[in-house]
Amino acid sequence: MHRTYSLRNSRAPTASDLQNPPPPPSSTKSRFFGKGGIAYSFRRNAAGSWGPELSRKLSQLVKIEKNVLRSMEIASNERRDAAKQLSIWGLENDDDVSDITDKLGVLIYEVSELDDQFIDRYDQYRLTMKSIRDIEGSVQPSRDRKDKITDKIAYLKYKDPQSPKIEVFEQELVRAEAESLVAEAQLSNITRSKLRAAFNYQFDSIIEHSEKIALIAGYGKALLELLDDSPVTPGETRPAYDGYEASKQIIIDAESALNEWTLDSAQVKPTLSFKQEEYGDYDDEVEDEEAEQVEGGQPADEEEQRWAENADVTDDVEPAAATVQPVV
Amino acid sequence: MHRTYSLRNSRAPTASDLQNPPPPPSSTKSRFFGKGGIAYSFRRNAAGSWGPELSRKLSQLVKIEKNVLRSMEIASNERRDAAKQLSIWGLENDDDVSDITDKLGVLIYEVSELDDQFIDRYDQYRLTMKSIRDIEGSVQPSRDRKDKITDKIAYLKYKDPQSPKIEVFEQELVRAEAESLVAEAQLSNITRSKLRAAFNYQFDSIIEHSEKIALIAGYGKALLELLDDSPVTPGETRPAYDGYEASKQIIIDAESALNEWTLDSAQVKPTLSFKQEEYGDYDDEVEDEEAEQVEGGQPADEEEQRWAENADVTDDVEPAAATVQPVV
Repeated sequence: MHRTYSLRNSRAPTASDLQNPPPPPSSTKSRFFGKGGIAYSFRRNAAGSWGPELSRKLSQLVKIEKNVLRSMEIASNERRDAAKQLSIWGLENDDDVSDITDKLGVLIYEVSELDDQFIDRYDQYRLTMKSIRDIEGSVQPSRDRKDKITDKIAYLKYKDPQSPKIEVFEQELVRAEAESLVAEAQLSNITRSKLRAAFNYQFDSIIEHSEKIALIAGYGKALLELLDDSPVTPGETRPAYDGYEASKQIIIDAESALNEWTLDSAQVKPTLSFKQEEYGDYDDEVEDEEAEQVEGGQPADEEEQRWAENADVTDDVEPAAATVQPVV
Repeated sequence: MHRTYSLRNSRAPTASDLQNPPPPPSSTKSRFFGKGGIAYSFRRNAAGSWGPELSRKLSQLVKIEKNVLRSMEIASNERRDAAKQLSIWGLENDDDVSDITDKLGVLIYEVSELDDQFIDRYDQYRLTMKSIRDIEGSVQPSRDRKDKITDKIAYLKYKDPQSPKIEVFEQELVRAEAESLVAEAQLSNITRSKLRAAFNYQFDSIIEHSEKIALIAGYGKALLELLDDSPVTPGETRPAYDGYEASKQIIIDAESALNEWTLDSAQVKPTLSFKQEEYGDYDDEVEDEEAEQVEGGQPADEEEQRWAENADVTDDVEPAAATVQPVV
């Protein structure tokens, strides 16, 4: 592995670290409890020791992903409880604290709902990886058969070089090799198309999930603006809270922003320091440039459009893998 | 609670659901295992039954947040294992699959590192909420004392209305009320400033975490473009893989994008359907508008600038709460 590129030992502070220095490590982190328990390690170890040799590594990956899913599910359920508890706690406080904690609870509950949706999608990725494992498992017998016949021929050639059986086995080997050739080609094709589909689906889900969560956090910050945190002196009463309409409107805005979000409207885009043109979108690009010249469009949009095209190419690839397409 | 605004029972499909229909529920979800075990429920229930009455609800919230942290930590550790396993699995495949799974592993490992950083920050939020709980606990005795004296006076007035002790107790009650008034004002001030600081810090961390994860997912999609998934016929060999430079460059680009990310450069912004002007940024706005008119700036930037100002206002508020400022 190119450890130089991320599995690095020491890490220079990032721009955001310089802006806000990182906090000390979480006090809840523990060497003993960060492991997920017996069921988790049993699942993983069992997958690495049984089944066809060829598919063991991927079996183990599929089981580890199951552990990931289970822990995300627990975290999501706990977060839902935290949202409710926040609202319950706020109820006993003054009107403004009560209203704002309640609305914050609604937003955090929504985060937990989104986590739930993400878990469902992550599972589709896992199932697609699992189907690669199944193909790997099914290719194993044809490899085994080829090896077995090769062994038999070698044994006969050593023990009885004149045996007529050698010829029979050699013909059988040719057939086995042909079968194996087909099996290996299938494995190669299916592995690639499924791998690509699985990770494209996972990354799309991650993008959707993260952008929606970031949106919610933005609305959460807007809610906090309503909280009157100017200090009062003893005996002084705070002005009456009049933010009910505003807080309700923030929730409505948040809800409609979440409803309107689509992958095409995603804001966070990676910038690549080179062009990716392997996938034949060159022609479209030329056309677009011509169209832009006619309309006098801004050149600044080009990069964005190129990305959108890449996304299209990726989308077109997806239907190849049936597992990823959910049954509606 | 305004259940109409998010704790709703049925949910209409969102725009993104219409674009990509949701998958069936995850096959790993379970009614029995989604609960987090005995330690989780013990922690929560214990917090709700001991300690000063006033702080019990918040104690429970703090404990639930600890459960959230623990499960996020397990998920993050499992994801790190998944990244390693993906790379190990890829090693036995062809060059392109091997290189790309390895690089995907690097990206996913990075996601897990970011999760870890997020956990540390989330813990700071939890500790700030915990300090509100401590204030609540310390205000309880002064409330109790006031109640006790009031009871004593009522008892004496019933039993011996002429007792000289009544006057003594009444003077004591005045003192207790004064103390209580100060305590309640402190509680009110500290609750608000800490609540606001805690959630601002949490939401900032969420925004940083989600945008970085979304960035990584984008680079992951770029990596997948390098995978040659055109089907081969049996016996045909694939063209040699020449993507090593490109895949390495994608990782470098991803790393530098992550390093350069700051909260000011955040892309995902909420749009509010009303103006938030409670916090005195009106004057700045007028100035900005004048400045823009001089420079002939685009009106489209106004909304963005307004948001940036809101963010500034929020940042200014933060130093009030010492707990959130990490010890460097």
